[in-house]
Amino acid sequence: MQTVLLLGGYGFIGTNILSFIEKNLKNQYNVIVFDKLASHFASLSFGCVSRSYSGDFSDSVLLNTIFEENSIDCVIHSLSTTVPATSLNARYDVDSNLVPTLELLNTMIKHNVYDIAYISSGGAIYGNNDILHKETEDVFPISSYGVVKLTIEKYLMQYAQLHNLRPLILRLSNPYGPYHYSMKQGVINVALAYAIKNVEFAVWGDGNSEKDYIFIEDFVDILFTLKDKNIHTEVINIASGESLSVNKILESIKTHINSFNWIYKDASKYDVQKFKLDTSKLKSFINNYKFTSFDEGLHKTINWAKSL
Amino acid sequence: MQTVLLLGGYGFIGTNILSFIEKNLKNQYNVIVFDKLASHFASLSFGCVSRSYSGDFSDSVLLNTIFEENSIDCVIHSLSTTVPATSLNARYDVDSNLVPTLELLNTMIKHNVYDIAYISSGGAIYGNNDILHKETEDVFPISSYGVVKLTIEKYLMQYAQLHNLRPLILRLSNPYGPYHYSMKQGVINVALAYAIKNVEFAVWGDGNSEKDYIFIEDFVDILFTLKDKNIHTEVINIASGESLSVNKILESIKTHINSFNWIYKDASKYDVQKFKLDTSKLKSFINNYKFTSFDEGLHKTINWAKSL
Repeated sequence: MQTVLLLGGYGFIGTNILSFIEKNLKNQYNVIVFDKLASHFASLSFGCVSRSYSGDFSDSVLLNTIFEENSIDCVIHSLSTTVPATSLNARYDVDSNLVPTLELLNTMIKHNVYDIAYISSGGAIYGNNDILHKETEDVFPISSYGVVKLTIEKYLMQYAQLHNLRPLILRLSNPYGPYHYSMKQGVINVALAYAIKNVEFAVWGDGNSEKDYIFIEDFVDILFTLKDKNIHTEVINIASGESLSVNKILESIKTHINSFNWIYKDASKYDVQKFKLDTSKLKSFINNYKFTSFDEGLHKTINWAKSL
Repeated sequence: MQTVLLLGGYGFIGTNILSFIEKNLKNQYNVIVFDKLASHFASLSFGCVSRSYSGDFSDSVLLNTIFEENSIDCVIHSLSTTVPATSLNARYDVDSNLVPTLELLNTMIKHNVYDIAYISSGGAIYGNNDILHKETEDVFPISSYGVVKLTIEKYLMQYAQLHNLRPLILRLSNPYGPYHYSMKQGVINVALAYAIKNVEFAVWGDGNSEKDYIFIEDFVDILFTLKDKNIHTEVINIASGESLSVNKILESIKTHINSFNWIYKDASKYDVQKFKLDTSKLKSFINNYKFTSFDEGLHKTINWAKSL
C-alpha cells in the first residue's frame, strides 16, 4: 500500500485520478489530497482518500506539515492556479505555480520522497505550428502557462540529476471527459455544457483548428501503467493520435443533442491553432494501447454531464 | 543618439560594454546605468554614462521611475543576482532574477521600448555533455542559474510574439578579460588573481575539462555589430571556437607569471565538464570575425590585472 499525495485532487484531472484509483487500485493506493477546495463541488466522495488538506499552494508551511503528518511515498502534481488564457500575468503565474513547485520539490527531498508524476501540457508547451511535436524539440510556448510548465519540467530534470528525484513528466494533449467543471478551457466539455443548458456556443475562430484529444480515463490509465513500470526521469507525450477539428466536435455533440447551436467569433491570440503530438516514445513504453474512440468517450462524457 | 539602459552596468560584462561605448560609440550611445552598486569598485568613470541608478533589481517602482525619468530607446540586460555555483537556492534565483525580468519587460512595453539585448549563457544553458551545442537543441541546464536564463529567453521570445518585443538573445561562452573582479566564476580571471597575489590556486577536478573561451572585448564588439545590423528575435551562440583546457590556461598564465602554482581538488558537481558551442548561426550574421587570440587576450588581461 502506497500513500500518494495528489496535488489538485479536486480538479478535472485530479478527480479522474481519484475515480480511477477507487475503481482499480483501491488496494494499492491510499490518497492524501491537497487542493484549494476542501472537497468537490458536487458532493463526490472517494473511499481511497484518507485525508484532505485545503489551502493555498503558496503556503509552504502547510505543504511541509502534510509531509510531517503523513508518510508520503509519492506525489502526483496536477495543480495549476492558471489556465493558458488566464496566464497573461506572467508574474502571477511564476509566483503562484513555479515558486510553490520549487518549494514542493525541496520539501520532498527533505522528507526523502523522490517519486513525482508531473502533469505537463503538450498543448501549452509546443508552439503554434503545424508539425508533429516530439519531446526533444526546442519549444517556444505562446502562453506564460506554457513557459511555467516548461520551466518546472527543467527543474524536475535538474533535481533528478542533483538530488536523485525520479520525475515522470507527462505532456498531455487535450483531455476531455467526466468531472470537467471548468468553463475556461477544454472545448469539448465547455461546448457540451452549453449544449445541455441549451445556450448558443461561441467558437473562437472558424472552427477548423485541429487538436489531438484524449479521453481522460485513458490518460489516467496510462499514467498508472507508466508508474507501475517504474518509468521516470523521462518527458513523454501522451495523446491518442485522434486529431479533431472544433467543427467536427460540435457536429458530434449535435448528433447527441439536436438543439445545440453555435456561432463563430475572432480567433484568440493565445490558442494553438493546430497541433499533433508524436507518440512514438509513449509507444516504446506501452505498445498497442487501445484508446477509447471519440464517439465512445463523448457518449460517456454526455452521460456524466446529464447526471449533474 | 540613442539612450540605452544598461542593467548590471558595473559588473564584468557591463563595464566592458561601457568601456567599448566610451572608445568606439560615444557619439551613438548615451548610457543610463542600473546596478546594485552606486559606482565601480575601482573609481572608473565613463563619460558616456549620463546617469546612474543603484538599487535592488526587484524594486519595480524604481525600475518604472527610470523609464519615467529618461527617454530610453533600448535595454541591455546583463544583470544576474546569482552565478551558477551560488544558484543552489532555486527559489531565490527565480525571485531575484526571473520575476524582476518579467517586471522589466512589462515596464518596457508600458513605455513603448521594444529593443532588448539579453546576455544569456551557453555554459549554463547547455547540459553537461560532449557535443557541439546548437541553439535549436533541447537543453537540460544543470544549475538553477541555467534554468532561469532559459526561462527568461522563452519569455523574451513570447513577448516578441505577443507584444512585438525585439529581443536579441546571446548565449555567451566563457568570457575573460579586463574588469573581471568576481572571485566566484571565470577560471582565467580567478587564476590570474591568485597568480598575481602569489597565492596557490585550487583546481576543481583534474584540469582536463575543456571550454570555449572568448575575450570579452570581442563579445561586446559582436553584440553591437548584431545590434547595428538590427538582428532580433533570435537566440545566437557567441563563442570564439577556441577550446582550452584548464591546464592549458594555467600553463599559459605561468609563462607570464613564473611563480604561479596550483593544486588539484575534487570535481564540482555544478560545473560543465566539457563543452563547445556551434557558431554557424553567428557566422551567418557576421562572417570571418577576427577573434583575439588567447595569448593576446591573456596579455591584455594581465596588464589590466597588474594595474589594479
